[in-house]
Amino acid sequence: MPKNYLLIPGPTPVPQDVLLEMAREMVNHRGSEFANVLKTSTELLKKVFKTQNDVLILTASGTGGMEAAVVNFFSQGDPVLVGVCGVFGERFAKICKAYGLNVKTIDCEPGKGVEPEILEKALKENPDVKGVFLTHNETSTGVTNDLKTLAPIVKQNPERLLVVDAVSSLGAIDLPTDDLKVDVVVTASQKALETPPGLAMVSVSELAWKYNEKANLPRFYFDLKQAKKFLEEGATPFTPAVSVVFALRKALENILNRGLEQNFKRHQVLGRAVREAVKALGVTKLLADERWASDTVTPIIPPENVNPDELRKYIRTKFGVVLAGGQGVLKGKIFRVGHVGYVEPTDILVAISAIEIALENMGYKGLKGKGTQVAEEIFAEYYKN
Amino acid sequence: MPKNYLLIPGPTPVPQDVLLEMAREMVNHRGSEFANVLKTSTELLKKVFKTQNDVLILTASGTGGMEAAVVNFFSQGDPVLVGVCGVFGERFAKICKAYGLNVKTIDCEPGKGVEPEILEKALKENPDVKGVFLTHNETSTGVTNDLKTLAPIVKQNPERLLVVDAVSSLGAIDLPTDDLKVDVVVTASQKALETPPGLAMVSVSELAWKYNEKANLPRFYFDLKQAKKFLEEGATPFTPAVSVVFALRKALENILNRGLEQNFKRHQVLGRAVREAVKALGVTKLLADERWASDTVTPIIPPENVNPDELRKYIRTKFGVVLAGGQGVLKGKIFRVGHVGYVEPTDILVAISAIEIALENMGYKGLKGKGTQVAEEIFAEYYKN
Repeated sequence: MPKNYLLIPGPTPVPQDVLLEMAREMVNHRGSEFANVLKTSTELLKKVFKTQNDVLILTASGTGGMEAAVVNFFSQGDPVLVGVCGVFGERFAKICKAYGLNVKTIDCEPGKGVEPEILEKALKENPDVKGVFLTHNETSTGVTNDLKTLAPIVKQNPERLLVVDAVSSLGAIDLPTDDLKVDVVVTASQKALETPPGLAMVSVSELAWKYNEKANLPRFYFDLKQAKKFLEEGATPFTPAVSVVFALRKALENILNRGLEQNFKRHQVLGRAVREAVKALGVTKLLADERWASDTVTPIIPPENVNPDELRKYIRTKFGVVLAGGQGVLKGKIFRVGHVGYVEPTDILVAISAIEIALENMGYKGLKGKGTQVAEEIFAEYYKN
Repeated sequence: MPKNYLLIPGPTPVPQDVLLEMAREMVNHRGSEFANVLKTSTELLKKVFKTQNDVLILTASGTGGMEAAVVNFFSQGDPVLVGVCGVFGERFAKICKAYGLNVKTIDCEPGKGVEPEILEKALKENPDVKGVFLTHNETSTGVTNDLKTLAPIVKQNPERLLVVDAVSSLGAIDLPTDDLKVDVVVTASQKALETPPGLAMVSVSELAWKYNEKANLPRFYFDLKQAKKFLEEGATPFTPAVSVVFALRKALENILNRGLEQNFKRHQVLGRAVREAVKALGVTKLLADERWASDTVTPIIPPENVNPDELRKYIRTKFGVVLAGGQGVLKGKIFRVGHVGYVEPTDILVAISAIEIALENMGYKGLKGKGTQVAEEIFAEYYKN
C-alpha cells in the first residue's frame, strides 16, 4: 500500500491535530463548551473572510451554502446574472432556476474567466438585475476570476447584490470581502480551511440582510436569519456537525497562526510550480488561460493518446497520489492536480515525479526530472525567505 | 473535572471505535474506497430501517432530512395532515407551511400521543389529504406514537403518503418500515445510530417516488432523485461529510452485530428503569402519559420549588451528568433524561444517583437510594438473560 497523497481540489488532506479533534467525545450542542467553540470559530472565520459582516455556519456541503445564498435574498422572478466558467458557475445558475429566478448567464469558454468588459456590457443591457453571482475560483476549469476588477463593476450600482462562491478559494486566494463590498460569500470546510467536509459558511452584508426582509423564496433548513438569531446564544437552529466545528476551530487557529498572507503566498508558489512543470514537460498542456490560472487547482491536458483516467489510475496505484478527473464536458479529457489546503511543496514534487514516471512508462521518453527541475527552482526561491 | 455522562436525547455518546473512525485520513469522495463505505452504510441502514426501499444519506441535520421529506414529494397547495405532539411535530408543520402546503394539524396535549380515533376522524373529515406526517418519537414531550396502530389508519387509503420522523427512535424503538408501509422515514446519525451529528437519512417507497414525479416544490440540495442517481455509482451529488460516513458504517456494524432486537430490548429496560425511579422518588413526576412513554427520553417534572435548570446545572457540575432542559412551552418547567444510543444501565444508575443526591442537598430528604433501588431491580432482571 503506497502512502496517501490526496491532491484533488477537495476534500483536501487534513492535518493530524485537526483529525484528532474529530475523535473528541461528543458534547451537548446546547451547552457552554460548544457555544464557545462555535463563537470562536465564527470570529476566526471573519478574519479569513476579511469581513465585519455576519458569518454563519451551516451543516451542509458547499452547495448547501450556495443554496442558502439564493433562497435567503431573492424572490420569485427576480432577474439575476450568473457568471458561468464551468460546473460550479453552472450550479449557481441551476439553483437560481430551481427557485424560479429569472436567470441570465455570461458563459465563458473552458479555461477563461469573466471579462470585465463583458460583465459591464451585460449589466448595461440588463439594468434591472438584482443580483450578480460569480465563482471566485472555478475548480472544473482551473480559473480564478479577478474579483478585484469585477466586484467594482457590479457595485457601480451599490444596491445590486454581489454573491460570490469562494468554496475552493477562501483562505488560499485573497478575497477581501469588505474592501470589495461582496455581499454574500460562500465557502466550505473541506478546501483551503483544512477541515473535513460537513460545514458550509456564508457571510451576509447589511445590504443582503435588507434583501432578506423582502425575499419570498421558501426556506427552512437554510434560513440564515434563524442561524443569526441562534448564533447570538452560541447555538445553531438545528443539531450541527459538532465534531467538524471542533476541527474547524483548530484548523483556523493553525492557518491564522501561520498567517493568512503566508497562506496566499504558499498557494501562489504551489500553483506556479505545477504550471511551470506542466509547460516544461512539453507533452502536457494547461487547460486554463494563464491570465486566470488558479492557485488551488491545475487542470492538465494529457499528451495525445494518453487517457487521463488511465494515467490517474496508474499514478494512484503506484504512488498513492490521488488526482482528480475532468468534470462536465471535460470528463475524460483532462486530469487535475489539486494544490489547496494542507499541501506542501514536497507533495507537489511527489506528484510531478509521479506524472513524469507514469508518462515515461507510457512511452513518452526524456521526461524524468524535467518538470521536477523547474518546480525545485521555484521552491528553492520560496525557501530563501 | 468530573467524567462526562452525556444523557441528552442527542447528540448522544459515541463509542470510542466509532470516534476513531472520525480521525481517519481524508479520502477522495469520488474514489472506490468511499464508494464502498457509502454502499455498505446504505445496505446496513436498510436493515435498521427494516426496508427494501431506497435509503439515501444526506449531509445535514435531521431537520434537513425532514425538509427533504417535504420538498421531494409534494406540490404547492397540497393538503396534508400533521400530528403535533411537541416541538418536532410542530417543526414538520412549519416546514410544510414554509413551502406553501395546505396544513391541518392534530394537536396533542403535552405528554400525549396521537389517538387513533382522532386520526381516523381527521382523515374522514379531510378525505383529500395527500400526505400524513407523524413523529415516531417526540423528544420534547417523551412521547412515542403507536405507529403499529396509526399507520394502518393512514393506509386505509393506500395512495396516501405516510411520512414519519424517526430521528430520535430509529434503531432504538422498533419501526418496521415495510410491514407498516411507511413511505418516507427520516432519521439522523446522532441519536440511536451512535454516530456524531452531520448526516440525515431518508427512506423512499415506490409510492413516494411516484409522488416525486409530480411534485413541483423547488429543491436542489435536498433533491432525493439526484441522490438516488449518484448512489448507483457509489457517490453523492455534493461532497458528503466523509468522516461521518466512515463513523456511521462502524456504528451500524456494532449495532447489527449486537442485534437490533437486543437494542430495542435495552432501550425498553433503560426507559422503564428511569420511569420507575422517577415514580419511586415520589417528589418527581413523569410528564408523559405512560401509555405513550418513550424508551429513548424521559421528561421529568421536578419537585415544586426546584428550578429544573438549576438542578441540571448542579448535576452537570458535580457529576458530569449532562441532562436536557425543556423545549418550547416546556422550557424551564421540566428536565429530560436521554437514554438513547450508546447508553448502558450503568450510565442510568449514575444519573439516578446524581438526581437523588442533588435533590437531597436541595432539601428533599429520604431520597438516597430510593430510585436506584427500583432501577437495580429492573437491571438485575435484565442481566439474568
